[in-house]
Amino acid sequence: MQLGLSVSDSDVSSFTPLVVLELADDTKAEAITWLLNRIRDKQQNGGAELLVNQLLFPAQDDQKPNPNVFVVGSTLQRLLNGAEDVGLFKEFQDGTMRGFTYANRESFNDFNEGFLSDAECQYIIKHELDTLRAKNEEHVPGYPKLKLYPGKSVVRRLQSKGVLNQYFPLHNKEDLKRLSFSWYKKFKLSFQPLDDIRHYFGEGLALYFGFLEYFTFALVPMALIGIPYYLFDWEDYDKYVLFAVFNLVWSTVFLEVWKRCSATLAYGWGTLSRKKAFEEPRAGFHGALGFNPVTGREEPVYPSSKRQLRIYLVSVPFVLLCLYLSFYVMMVYFDMEFWAINIYNEDPSIATSILLFVPSIIYAVVIEIMNLLYRFAAEFLTDWENHRLESSFQNHLVLKVLVFNFVNCFASLFYIAFVMQDMVLLRQSLATLLITSQILNQVMEAFLPYWLQRRRNKKVHKRMRRLMGDKELPLLGQVKLETEMNTYLGTFDDYLEQFLLFGYVSLFSCVYPLAAVLVVLNNITEVYSDAFKMCHVFKRPFSEPATNIGVWQLAFETMSIIAVVTNCALIGLSPQVKAYFPESDTQLILIVVAIEHVLLAFKFILAFVIPDVPKHIQVNLAKLEFDSLEAFKKREYKTKKEAGSEDQT
Amino acid sequence: MQLGLSVSDSDVSSFTPLVVLELADDTKAEAITWLLNRIRDKQQNGGAELLVNQLLFPAQDDQKPNPNVFVVGSTLQRLLNGAEDVGLFKEFQDGTMRGFTYANRESFNDFNEGFLSDAECQYIIKHELDTLRAKNEEHVPGYPKLKLYPGKSVVRRLQSKGVLNQYFPLHNKEDLKRLSFSWYKKFKLSFQPLDDIRHYFGEGLALYFGFLEYFTFALVPMALIGIPYYLFDWEDYDKYVLFAVFNLVWSTVFLEVWKRCSATLAYGWGTLSRKKAFEEPRAGFHGALGFNPVTGREEPVYPSSKRQLRIYLVSVPFVLLCLYLSFYVMMVYFDMEFWAINIYNEDPSIATSILLFVPSIIYAVVIEIMNLLYRFAAEFLTDWENHRLESSFQNHLVLKVLVFNFVNCFASLFYIAFVMQDMVLLRQSLATLLITSQILNQVMEAFLPYWLQRRRNKKVHKRMRRLMGDKELPLLGQVKLETEMNTYLGTFDDYLEQFLLFGYVSLFSCVYPLAAVLVVLNNITEVYSDAFKMCHVFKRPFSEPATNIGVWQLAFETMSIIAVVTNCALIGLSPQVKAYFPESDTQLILIVVAIEHVLLAFKFILAFVIPDVPKHIQVNLAKLEFDSLEAFKKREYKTKKEAGSEDQT
Repeated sequence: MQLGLSVSDSDVSSFTPLVVLELADDTKAEAITWLLNRIRDKQQNGGAELLVNQLLFPAQDDQKPNPNVFVVGSTLQRLLNGAEDVGLFKEFQDGTMRGFTYANRESFNDFNEGFLSDAECQYIIKHELDTLRAKNEEHVPGYPKLKLYPGKSVVRRLQSKGVLNQYFPLHNKEDLKRLSFSWYKKFKLSFQPLDDIRHYFGEGLALYFGFLEYFTFALVPMALIGIPYYLFDWEDYDKYVLFAVFNLVWSTVFLEVWKRCSATLAYGWGTLSRKKAFEEPRAGFHGALGFNPVTGREEPVYPSSKRQLRIYLVSVPFVLLCLYLSFYVMMVYFDMEFWAINIYNEDPSIATSILLFVPSIIYAVVIEIMNLLYRFAAEFLTDWENHRLESSFQNHLVLKVLVFNFVNCFASLFYIAFVMQDMVLLRQSLATLLITSQILNQVMEAFLPYWLQRRRNKKVHKRMRRLMGDKELPLLGQVKLETEMNTYLGTFDDYLEQFLLFGYVSLFSCVYPLAAVLVVLNNITEVYSDAFKMCHVFKRPFSEPATNIGVWQLAFETMSIIAVVTNCALIGLSPQVKAYFPESDTQLILIVVAIEHVLLAFKFILAFVIPDVPKHIQVNLAKLEFDSLEAFKKREYKTKKEAGSEDQT
Repeated sequence: MQLGLSVSDSDVSSFTPLVVLELADDTKAEAITWLLNRIRDKQQNGGAELLVNQLLFPAQDDQKPNPNVFVVGSTLQRLLNGAEDVGLFKEFQDGTMRGFTYANRESFNDFNEGFLSDAECQYIIKHELDTLRAKNEEHVPGYPKLKLYPGKSVVRRLQSKGVLNQYFPLHNKEDLKRLSFSWYKKFKLSFQPLDDIRHYFGEGLALYFGFLEYFTFALVPMALIGIPYYLFDWEDYDKYVLFAVFNLVWSTVFLEVWKRCSATLAYGWGTLSRKKAFEEPRAGFHGALGFNPVTGREEPVYPSSKRQLRIYLVSVPFVLLCLYLSFYVMMVYFDMEFWAINIYNEDPSIATSILLFVPSIIYAVVIEIMNLLYRFAAEFLTDWENHRLESSFQNHLVLKVLVFNFVNCFASLFYIAFVMQDMVLLRQSLATLLITSQILNQVMEAFLPYWLQRRRNKKVHKRMRRLMGDKELPLLGQVKLETEMNTYLGTFDDYLEQFLLFGYVSLFSCVYPLAAVLVVLNNITEVYSDAFKMCHVFKRPFSEPATNIGVWQLAFETMSIIAVVTNCALIGLSPQVKAYFPESDTQLILIVVAIEHVLLAFKFILAFVIPDVPKHIQVNLAKLEFDSLEAFKKREYKTKKEAGSEDQT
């Protein structure tokens, strides 16, 4: 059995290095010794039982390298035990997915070749490091101020106090080459290699790329309908009713079907039925030492009332202030717009007709900048709110960011559509906003980091060559390079971008049918640039066992409800529909409102009726549950019989 | 330790009889012998290990009594084992609710006195009887046509083929006397004895009475506001805006808070964290013998496509036809109404003013009759659809009945309010409908069955006395009496009635504020009549371990959403509001629609934000989960170590 890892650096490290651990370069020697001992110690002594080696970089002319860089690896036996600890699901010999147990290891398919993927091994090591807990130490040796208490995660404490700079998984050059070839190096019309992505980066990222692909494919029919609309009806914007109806149905069905796709993917990857581990407090959480009411363990406690005060007295007013600012900027944009139109009307020439687009472009850039600034502020505020769990932190962050981004990006469009009722301006504004933000995004997200990374790469390569001549030192070089790469901050920004694009398409594409086409084009390049940035710009991220796209499903569904309302209103405003009710607006409005209510009701019924998990997976899940129930009954019966016989004696 | 049951008939039965089993009087002797053997047989032989005795009624002059009536009881040890089988939750010594295990029995609170309630003992016996499965028998002895297959529930097969007439739990006279005294015999203003009800009838019924009480109390503020409205503004129906707004907020908060109450009750009763048992096919389900894809067991299989065909080609058209009929009847009612108004206008006298109410009263009676007839049809149709699971059967039945009842009861009111826009007629119609249906309901539900039961009681008493003289035979007499009582068909009709009352209040009470008062009065008598009917009119029902009010929560929530829309529309129609927009209806409608959308959004956010389970119960549940996780880890670690040591040898 092999793990698919090449031990290419037997002189540097006697095992396959999987994870890099970088401590601050002024860390005290006794702390290091203590940490390494705890990592190497046997499990029954409360250690992690992992392999760990120091990497010594040769000194350089101008600056001393950090001596405290370590690589961590593991024996196969330890990894398999760890796979059971983290509750990994694997394909059983009968084709269903079952929780891996070491005792039944031979009954799992493919146990003898590449059973655990790289990403899984690294995830297991991360889990073992994270759950390495303090025993009786009162503080970290050498640091009397770094208090510990029994059960506190050592790595989290070191990380939150800045002793542990970072720990990250190493890339596997061969696998990466293979993956990037099948992923983006050959230009072809085919599906993305989701299984390979999951194998290398884990389920969370693979689900994102799955969603990206699904979203793009789902947009294709819309784009195909949009092109003739655009070509033949450019100025005849009355005819958008049919398109709006299509929009409505599409956005509902799209999300319902995705749930089923995502369940299918997650089942195949074994994350669907995986039990959630008990959630630990997040690394940044602080408070007076108290007792957790659930576990009874000593840990920091922070009164929920204080957090509520911070949320309602600081965060909410801040968000409202930001929203006000965003409205203010919008009003400035409209002033600019009128000014440009006035100039054009006074002197209609090519130069002034180009000038017409300038306000929108400037506004789009300002929107992006405001989004970016707000993102930092939101992260700071949410951190300051001191949430105990990572999930609650994420929910509050997502909520803050979504509300602002939604208002910031779409307020002007709503204003143009429903207050000014100027469909020509709406179309022009939408186009400029969409195109500008796409270009900005691609630059900010991929090209800029890539360019910075290339410069850094070259510098490192040069430095290395100067030091060792042409003699290559692959592991040392690789670690050096990857240590200095940027950290990938998770799929948040990627989903946010897709969310806003979904908004542009589902809310207003009936007045600008090319929106779907633009988003499809954007997403095709997005796949490539995202793939490239994952492989070459950022540090490899730890895999995340995701079951679905989480809070984003809710966000997309909310958007699609808003889309129903918006599209109905746009239909009601269209001159074509208005022509049917020449006498009274009242009747028209009542009918539109009635239709909207019916559509919303239909949407909810549809969401309720379509099962979230496809039938055959439901059967498999029920099977699993039934088997475990039966096994449980048997075991209970056995213990009961034993207890009974004890009773009689 | 005692179970609280008095063994008063030691000559008839040597154990406390808990459940009565009545077979058809022409059942073949070999089938009876076989069934009794299976019930008495030890558990390791696949039997139920229960105690069972025949009851021999003395022969009567005119007719032979059924010789095949049996009483079933159990030893305490068997009941405790059974409590573990059904997954009963009890209060542990640390105050939390935990799954009972026989091994830890001493660690549960109150283990030594009245640990298992009557209702629980009977539920356990029912469970053991239901899970008495066929072994290798190919058919029931003596009945070659009653096919069996390994794993088929014997009792269900006997029941579905009419060999087993019925089985039901016996009343406990002393407990019943105590319960009925604290419940309805003393007139007092206090809460209902929910814990006692639960003790005697089980969680399902106790939750219904809890809901009834909660709903009634929630209506009190509304009724208090309604009275002055009614007294001082009877003809000034413009002023209902404030009342409609109150209505809106009330109906949302009411349901959200109930969820928390119900979770608190269910936690205290140990049903909240109880795992659902694997659901067996319902008794009436039939189909060709095949293999269950989940359990792999042989059982009847019915293709889902056939069921879909039945639903969409027969049931749906039938429901639509009934709805059409209901509309037709409504139109006839309006004709009658106009005819009555015409007569009154021609000759306004007391007689003709009374005539004004006649059409509504007739219509209300017709509605009730149609509801009743439809109920039978719906049950027949849903049964014919051949659903595999009881839960799916219930869902389809509830959906069918709710849709029809909603339309049948409220269509005329909607028509009057929004098409005719006649608020005076709406108020009058609402009052007549509400009062008539309340009176009819009370009669049909309690007084009629009570009267029939009294007649029957007297006959049985007389017959018994004639046979045995004054010598009393309590058990025989009790069984005889209870065998002939009507069976309580579950809480369906009771919830349905509350659902319709909730509709009257939340949809239209702003135009007729007395509605809340009437509903409060109705519910106060309802509590008494329902309590009385449970104690003295019906057979004691088996207890049902309910966690919440199930599909009815959804039904009430849907109603409260419809209530938002209706109330907003009523506000928009009010002359008071219209006066603010003298120029254009359009603006008024737009504002009302906007407010409605905001309210709906607010409602959804509220439902999302308010946690369904109170904090302290969440903590307790998390504690339980944490402990079981820790225990699981320890056990896994042990088995892993054992496996590891085996591995090394």
